[in-house]
Amino acid sequence: MSDVKTIEIHENIFADNDMAAKMVREKLKNNNCYMVNFMSSPGSGKTTTLISLINKLKNNLNIYLMNVDIKTDCDASKIAKNTGINTLQINNGGLCHIDAEMTLNALKEVDLKDIDLLILENIGNLVCPAEFDTGANKNIMILSVPEGDDKPLKYPLMFSVCDLVLINKIDVLPFFDFDMDKAVKNIKNLNKNAKIIPISAKTGEGIDEVINWLNNCFKF
Amino acid sequence: MSDVKTIEIHENIFADNDMAAKMVREKLKNNNCYMVNFMSSPGSGKTTTLISLINKLKNNLNIYLMNVDIKTDCDASKIAKNTGINTLQINNGGLCHIDAEMTLNALKEVDLKDIDLLILENIGNLVCPAEFDTGANKNIMILSVPEGDDKPLKYPLMFSVCDLVLINKIDVLPFFDFDMDKAVKNIKNLNKNAKIIPISAKTGEGIDEVINWLNNCFKF
Repeated sequence: MSDVKTIEIHENIFADNDMAAKMVREKLKNNNCYMVNFMSSPGSGKTTTLISLINKLKNNLNIYLMNVDIKTDCDASKIAKNTGINTLQINNGGLCHIDAEMTLNALKEVDLKDIDLLILENIGNLVCPAEFDTGANKNIMILSVPEGDDKPLKYPLMFSVCDLVLINKIDVLPFFDFDMDKAVKNIKNLNKNAKIIPISAKTGEGIDEVINWLNNCFKF
Repeated sequence: MSDVKTIEIHENIFADNDMAAKMVREKLKNNNCYMVNFMSSPGSGKTTTLISLINKLKNNLNIYLMNVDIKTDCDASKIAKNTGINTLQINNGGLCHIDAEMTLNALKEVDLKDIDLLILENIGNLVCPAEFDTGANKNIMILSVPEGDDKPLKYPLMFSVCDLVLINKIDVLPFFDFDMDKAVKNIKNLNKNAKIIPISAKTGEGIDEVINWLNNCFKF
């Protein structure tokens, strides 16, 4: 039997972000606007899921999207092109997350008064974005089937801070060793209140259930 | 046509890491040991790829693995169990990367004198690990087919700092909209010197080519 040694190395990277998050939430409340923060790994399907969701919601709601990206406007442009809604691209110059102060700065560019639902599409990253309250009313994260059912064990904070976990790419379940029961159990062990919805952004399966969840949360 | 506005928000998070990286490399050189740093998104297949590689290399080389994880020892244990090599689990308490100083601290636990190849399996993250030289002799990253061919555009630094890019999960190419030529072009536009090898860690396809690349680099 081989040897597995474990050591701990720590570093403090946190700063107080609560005041800015409170200011974001007040600004949203004063404008009767709700904000959701979408987080996930790179390539888990945030943009495709958002296109599918927005196209089903846009006739009843005014929706605006802010996308955070290191350098490009690929996703904000793709969403604008495929849904017709207006979007804001936030390029953060290489940062791994967006915090509440950066969100407040971004909101200077957005006229909230006619917006019902503001969507923040965060940087693709399962670590850092979970550490920063953006001021959003709800956190939503996407775990995709190809990433594996063990990801909640390895990135526990992300799954702990989310109100809704979407398990995406269920159309490719037959081709991966992904145990849905194990994934759900791993998530529930961290966060028993999280709602979990399996979806396929590609085929549209599960998207109506996500819309019901949003409608129940925000009473649009 | 809908409107895409772009704003830039910056924050400086870098610290000088070069001296510690130099010390790591001197320590490796003094022990005739080579170190490779494996980086990727969560769930792209680092651990499965490493098991496949190590099992083909372990008869000719002494290999040691250091795995960085926020909390668990899942992957270090999985590699130890499936290859028989010794491993070190580095739990970093929630951090999104490992830097050279942390690597130096970890090396206090490792007797380098009998090790030919030291593998560092970094945190699953396409942003932060690319910002920190760990002192490794070569950087290797894995992009998996389900993540999409646009990832080099969105996470450019990671693809710029790597000597070798493995495009993993090619066994599921028929089920995803992944254009291999586009992916290769996107990587080469950022880093013309990067070697690119398509692999399937699951079926073993391409693994021999990775071994040839390592042997050519390090003249084992």
